[in-house]
Amino acid sequence: MSKRQVVILRRRPVGAPTADIFAIEEDAIPEPAEGQVLTRTIFLSIDPYMRGRLSDAKSYAAPVPIGGMMEGETVGEVIASRDPGFAPGDVVVGPRGWASHLVSAAKFLVKLPRNGAPLSNYLGVLGMPGTTAYSGMTDIGQPKAGETVVISAASGAVGAVAGQLAKRAGARVVGVAGGAEKCLFVQETLGFDECIDHRALDLKAALTDACPNGIDVYFENVGGELQRLVFPRLNAFGRVVMCGMVAEYNDTEPRPGPNLMMVVRNRLRIQGLIVSDKPERFAEWRALATPWVRDGSLKYREDIVDGLENAPDALIGILGGRNFGKLLVRVGADPA
Amino acid sequence: MSKRQVVILRRRPVGAPTADIFAIEEDAIPEPAEGQVLTRTIFLSIDPYMRGRLSDAKSYAAPVPIGGMMEGETVGEVIASRDPGFAPGDVVVGPRGWASHLVSAAKFLVKLPRNGAPLSNYLGVLGMPGTTAYSGMTDIGQPKAGETVVISAASGAVGAVAGQLAKRAGARVVGVAGGAEKCLFVQETLGFDECIDHRALDLKAALTDACPNGIDVYFENVGGELQRLVFPRLNAFGRVVMCGMVAEYNDTEPRPGPNLMMVVRNRLRIQGLIVSDKPERFAEWRALATPWVRDGSLKYREDIVDGLENAPDALIGILGGRNFGKLLVRVGADPA
Repeated sequence: MSKRQVVILRRRPVGAPTADIFAIEEDAIPEPAEGQVLTRTIFLSIDPYMRGRLSDAKSYAAPVPIGGMMEGETVGEVIASRDPGFAPGDVVVGPRGWASHLVSAAKFLVKLPRNGAPLSNYLGVLGMPGTTAYSGMTDIGQPKAGETVVISAASGAVGAVAGQLAKRAGARVVGVAGGAEKCLFVQETLGFDECIDHRALDLKAALTDACPNGIDVYFENVGGELQRLVFPRLNAFGRVVMCGMVAEYNDTEPRPGPNLMMVVRNRLRIQGLIVSDKPERFAEWRALATPWVRDGSLKYREDIVDGLENAPDALIGILGGRNFGKLLVRVGADPA
Repeated sequence: MSKRQVVILRRRPVGAPTADIFAIEEDAIPEPAEGQVLTRTIFLSIDPYMRGRLSDAKSYAAPVPIGGMMEGETVGEVIASRDPGFAPGDVVVGPRGWASHLVSAAKFLVKLPRNGAPLSNYLGVLGMPGTTAYSGMTDIGQPKAGETVVISAASGAVGAVAGQLAKRAGARVVGVAGGAEKCLFVQETLGFDECIDHRALDLKAALTDACPNGIDVYFENVGGELQRLVFPRLNAFGRVVMCGMVAEYNDTEPRPGPNLMMVVRNRLRIQGLIVSDKPERFAEWRALATPWVRDGSLKYREDIVDGLENAPDALIGILGGRNFGKLLVRVGADPA
């Protein structure tokens, strides 16, 4: 009987996760039941939301149980199928779990085109993070020509797309990222109007300088000091897309937030977003953005780590902003 | 030449306003120019938003200038008109200012029906506060049958209407008010399901007990401790109508707000509201609510102070919750 590699959660972290809360184990490759599909994993997506799955705090999704397999989306190749819609050799996005092989209900899988975009794209620019940016800007941010839009974690998988959508809408787009290299990428490659290094000595002054007309839309991925500086600078009828607060995910106690008086005075709209609430957006975004990826007008960057055994360290790294672009683990070879 | 009484702002307060920042002066009754109307004031409305007009902090409306007349909405009787739409003896809502006589552009005035509701109602349940509650619930709160709705300052002019609208929508409505007398009124007269005295020893426990299924809609009038307790109790897709934060209006430094992580996790919508942004709502609400006031199904309470000279003290009082119901100053006699 063949074996697979699986990453399991051994215990819950207090504060920042450490590698020893995870373990890599071997178990038997599961057999697909009727209506199920067995895949070998090609890419595993690593995303900040996974920090939430490590904790048993009340959230929109159940935590990973202790001793259970870590949660995450993959692209894989079908190696056995008991569903008429899939056959060995098909490549799919949708199997979930940190493992070299996964069994999934066929209904959760989407078959990917051969000769399409690189497979990694379906976990990044064309996948969950891209769709998150698209949903957030479509339903909440709604940037307009001439408005000022600030994007936190601007070089990341979500921020990069969110900012480019705001540019397409004619807005002035200011990114915030960590370090000179990321900022250069955000301005030169992604084409944002400005990028602030949040490690700048005086973030407040940098933000004020970059946004002389205030801020109309803030796409929030990080929280922390930046959030507290952005809120008082929001203009009348400003919108905040509350997508994530990665800088605070490792906190053991919630830190104080911004005073909300300006929400009244400036009629702000502060709204949270979880991409899975509108599943129809995934196909909508793939259809819209695939031509942009193909013609090179939608830029992205991927940060690919090799080997499932490095997934825990990758997750620890993304929570500290150590990645540069969409973070993925290459678990198995790309099919020829 | 006849004289009028005017309340002017002598200097800006630091923290809680005191009576000596105001002065009552006499000046000549102004003459209406072409297109203007002169009224004698019957009722002056006193509202928490007026605290904002005392400060020169950036806001949606210009501050009252030092030495200038205080700002506020009145009901008055026309005593001279240079506009064909108004004649002496007409009663109107709309003249603005803390004065016994006011000159206004005719376009800002609305003629009130004789034999209609009591004139004071047009500054309260049928006026700006009622319209604020209606706009907030229609555009943001959108309470649904079976949901839990929490209303702060529940016995106040806005809260009383907001809660009754939520009851009409079939929601379970929990008011929060200061003191046993107000709470009795909120439950017995307004018909809310429960009312919490925010002076209760353990507000947190009282709120948890009153909202066993969490909170779906919060109508925010006060801020302060209550806001920080409500936010973590908001359910998925909860809405917060950010109408006011009277408990913090006298603060000299903004206090920390609630942590916003739950805005992401629970896809909350936190949105500010200024009633004048949608002026069409005023007539809409008067038409909708006048029959309800007439048939007694929409309850309200008014707190009427006599004499323009008592307006400063009334404003100081409302900022500390000393009023009980819609606060008004009777400046002149009701016409027979």
